[in-house]
Amino acid sequence: MTSRTEYEYEHDGAEIYRQSFATIRREAALDRLPADVAQVTVRMIHACGQVDLVDDVAFSEGVVGKARTALERGAPVLCDAQMVAAGVTRKRLPAFNEVVCTLNDPRTPDLAREMGTTRTAAALHLWGEKLDGAVVAIGNAPTALFHLLEMVAAGAPRPAAVVGIPVGFIGAVESKDALAASDLDFLVVRGRRGGSAMTAAAVNALASTAE
Amino acid sequence: MTSRTEYEYEHDGAEIYRQSFATIRREAALDRLPADVAQVTVRMIHACGQVDLVDDVAFSEGVVGKARTALERGAPVLCDAQMVAAGVTRKRLPAFNEVVCTLNDPRTPDLAREMGTTRTAAALHLWGEKLDGAVVAIGNAPTALFHLLEMVAAGAPRPAAVVGIPVGFIGAVESKDALAASDLDFLVVRGRRGGSAMTAAAVNALASTAE
Repeated sequence: MTSRTEYEYEHDGAEIYRQSFATIRREAALDRLPADVAQVTVRMIHACGQVDLVDDVAFSEGVVGKARTALERGAPVLCDAQMVAAGVTRKRLPAFNEVVCTLNDPRTPDLAREMGTTRTAAALHLWGEKLDGAVVAIGNAPTALFHLLEMVAAGAPRPAAVVGIPVGFIGAVESKDALAASDLDFLVVRGRRGGSAMTAAAVNALASTAE
Repeated sequence: MTSRTEYEYEHDGAEIYRQSFATIRREAALDRLPADVAQVTVRMIHACGQVDLVDDVAFSEGVVGKARTALERGAPVLCDAQMVAAGVTRKRLPAFNEVVCTLNDPRTPDLAREMGTTRTAAALHLWGEKLDGAVVAIGNAPTALFHLLEMVAAGAPRPAAVVGIPVGFIGAVESKDALAASDLDFLVVRGRRGGSAMTAAAVNALASTAE
């Protein structure tokens, strides 16, 4: 085994988590959030290293409770990107919930061409009836979030909650505003920030209150 | 198929990329970076939605060229986290390069206990000789980056380049400073920011200049 003389650092994973979360709770202005949203936000901040993320968090009333109830009842987690699915810690899920990402489904590219949209948006159609009561986690593509809203408006099954945290410069801001203006239960990060790590962190916090 | 009357947004994936990268090039102060590092930085900014990331990018001279040469010669990409590995776009890799993450290897938990460190750090020992000339991508755990430096100092094979972008509050800043002070070729984001999405984006940019 390698010697450890060169660097001084904390080696205990549990202690690293404890100190990280304590730093976040000390520095972030969490008191403007309900306790359950604050707990989810701590984990999202942990995933991006930025305590001012709290300023951009928006949510519908009771969304955390609704998402947790859905997960406890076995709802699947439907993800727009493989990275989001990869970031969901399976052992935190309360009911061996299915974690689904259909982006790499062999049917998706043809569907995208037919529909004239991105693969990420087309992939949502393969969720089918799983959407009913699901926890949706959009962490990459604004087009996926827009398309989800269109599907639900057109009569698709309604998810229990939507974690809508796409990142970027084209459509991210607008898609999150559109989700927040919809009648779905939602958790978003307003603005350009977001991404798969933050989104998976939110799902992991919804899945379990363990820190 | 669903109607699209409700929201106005760009549906063409290639056009979304083009507009995103154009926005980043317009807003980010990329001119302080060499052209090849700037190109990698554009993709990292794309992954986090923040153009001021450029202020925190640090690198060793020639690191982008060295990483690209290594990948063209078939070097593996060694990742500390499943999310980093999941975010590497396989078709961008120039030589069907192997993408390795040993965190979930069944030997890792016992190794971590023996070594008295995190699983993420212990997992690096399973890279073995693959480390020789590899592109290492650390996007999650400061302990993995510290441990990599210790391994190399103790005589482990030297990677061609290290993308060191762990995120967070405990050890992230210090581990990246330590990498930048080492004699390894590196690309880092100083400070607390980082994460698997940004790290995978950097690898994807090193793998191919295609936008």
